[in-house]
Amino acid sequence: MIKSEFLTFIYSLQDKITEALEGLEPSKKFQEDLWDRPGGGGGKTRILSDGQVIEKGGVNTSAVHGKLSPAMTKQLGVEEDDFFACGISLVLHPVNPHAPTVHANFRYFELYDEDKNIVNQWLGGGIDLTPYIIYESDIKHFHRVCKTTCDLHHKDYYPKFKEACDQYFWNHHREEARGVGGIFFDYLKPTESMSLQDQFDFVKQMGNQFLTAYLPILTHRKDQTYTPEQREWQLIRRGRYVEFNLIHDKGTLFGLKTKGRIESIFMSLPPLVKWAYQAIPNNKEQQQLVDILIQPRAWV
Amino acid sequence: MIKSEFLTFIYSLQDKITEALEGLEPSKKFQEDLWDRPGGGGGKTRILSDGQVIEKGGVNTSAVHGKLSPAMTKQLGVEEDDFFACGISLVLHPVNPHAPTVHANFRYFELYDEDKNIVNQWLGGGIDLTPYIIYESDIKHFHRVCKTTCDLHHKDYYPKFKEACDQYFWNHHREEARGVGGIFFDYLKPTESMSLQDQFDFVKQMGNQFLTAYLPILTHRKDQTYTPEQREWQLIRRGRYVEFNLIHDKGTLFGLKTKGRIESIFMSLPPLVKWAYQAIPNNKEQQQLVDILIQPRAWV
Repeated sequence: MIKSEFLTFIYSLQDKITEALEGLEPSKKFQEDLWDRPGGGGGKTRILSDGQVIEKGGVNTSAVHGKLSPAMTKQLGVEEDDFFACGISLVLHPVNPHAPTVHANFRYFELYDEDKNIVNQWLGGGIDLTPYIIYESDIKHFHRVCKTTCDLHHKDYYPKFKEACDQYFWNHHREEARGVGGIFFDYLKPTESMSLQDQFDFVKQMGNQFLTAYLPILTHRKDQTYTPEQREWQLIRRGRYVEFNLIHDKGTLFGLKTKGRIESIFMSLPPLVKWAYQAIPNNKEQQQLVDILIQPRAWV
Repeated sequence: MIKSEFLTFIYSLQDKITEALEGLEPSKKFQEDLWDRPGGGGGKTRILSDGQVIEKGGVNTSAVHGKLSPAMTKQLGVEEDDFFACGISLVLHPVNPHAPTVHANFRYFELYDEDKNIVNQWLGGGIDLTPYIIYESDIKHFHRVCKTTCDLHHKDYYPKFKEACDQYFWNHHREEARGVGGIFFDYLKPTESMSLQDQFDFVKQMGNQFLTAYLPILTHRKDQTYTPEQREWQLIRRGRYVEFNLIHDKGTLFGLKTKGRIESIFMSLPPLVKWAYQAIPNNKEQQQLVDILIQPRAWV
């Protein structure tokens, strides 16, 4: 049963990731918050605040069930409204501007008929990177891990999901990407060549590769010396992250509309953010980032 | 002609307000930025950054004309698409958490038929206050100026526009108000008892009362001693201001959708903002603010 396997996967991944990150923090630990959803189910939110490495990080799991709202059934284009959904979602905002912000999410959805038979089920997720200062080697490493993992499962996955990621994390009003992408996939349903189990194997492996993709970058950058100007630039660029999440991100807006748990939804927002008037790049390093964001590239 | 009178009004108000605020700043001045709108018209953006009193403030005027998009004609419920719009818009974020953020906006809109005759015209605007620490005397003063000015023109204005303000500046996802309100009016069109000229007189007087409503508060609070905890609370509460403007504010979202000038639209965003996990009130002073925001009051 994929449902129980997926739950095992997300809880074990949550433990693995929070443990690995705590290994980099000299004193701070994740604080766990268990919460119930009035309509059914609940979640396990883990937040690390004001660390020496992670300024704010959330690694959350949730498993909820109940009835979809009419708005949701319409959005999904389905008739049934009896659902189960679970997933893991994480966002890490490091202190050091040399270290990129990272986001990952893996989720599983089931829809039932009146006799509680599954009538529809799908997987979704992705991982993506948002740097403040460009290190091409870091970005290539991150994308290489994504591609290698994808390629083990389906040759079309990486090109398709890489493009979907660039398209989804697009700050339309700024005409630039939120970051340098990664992979993004939604409504992953069985096909002739890939069973749901095959797809779950892919998602599981991708989740398990998260630390391979991100931890070496964080470890390498966390102690790099930075200037006040680089920190300021990071705070300004974090503003774009907020703009994407509050204006464009479907998950965030859906969560707010359906009266989801605000504190868990907004764990993705950076700890400290600056909005300055006309904050345009004023050196080569800043310009390099913007040049890359307005024209997403092939990294591997 | 109301159009030219309104233009005179907004430019002179912009001068008056920026001059008065500069009078409180020991060294910083507003920086002016003139911009053109590709579709027709343009604006005069004035920004003061990193002042000793105003951390970030924008006092902008614009006068634009051209063709409405189909989305806009639909939203307005009109057939004609040939338009002229002008207005003044300001947001001031003081450094001192004892001093409230303030927002004001006054605008005028004309719609033409194919022969350039005016087929529709209306006024809109309002002023509202967003404190971080409650001083009832400040809030009462602000509302009293609003009410006194409204009462000179129409006995229904203050109660009606005060309620509209509380309704409009509502952070639905938090179930709390953005601030303590003021007045808000939209689509103010001639009625039997009030001609457009009468309404313009009201709007003009309200604009000219802005400094009466806000300046004494700012002058009184700008040098009050504050603690790091009060500053932190201000940064966290400013996050709610961002949330309102990016998630709910129709003006902001419309501006972004219609590819308005980003830097002018986002001048409303606070200079420095904090998002902490579960930032709930942890003293009486903070609790007092939240209590007032979740249940808007009659102040005069």
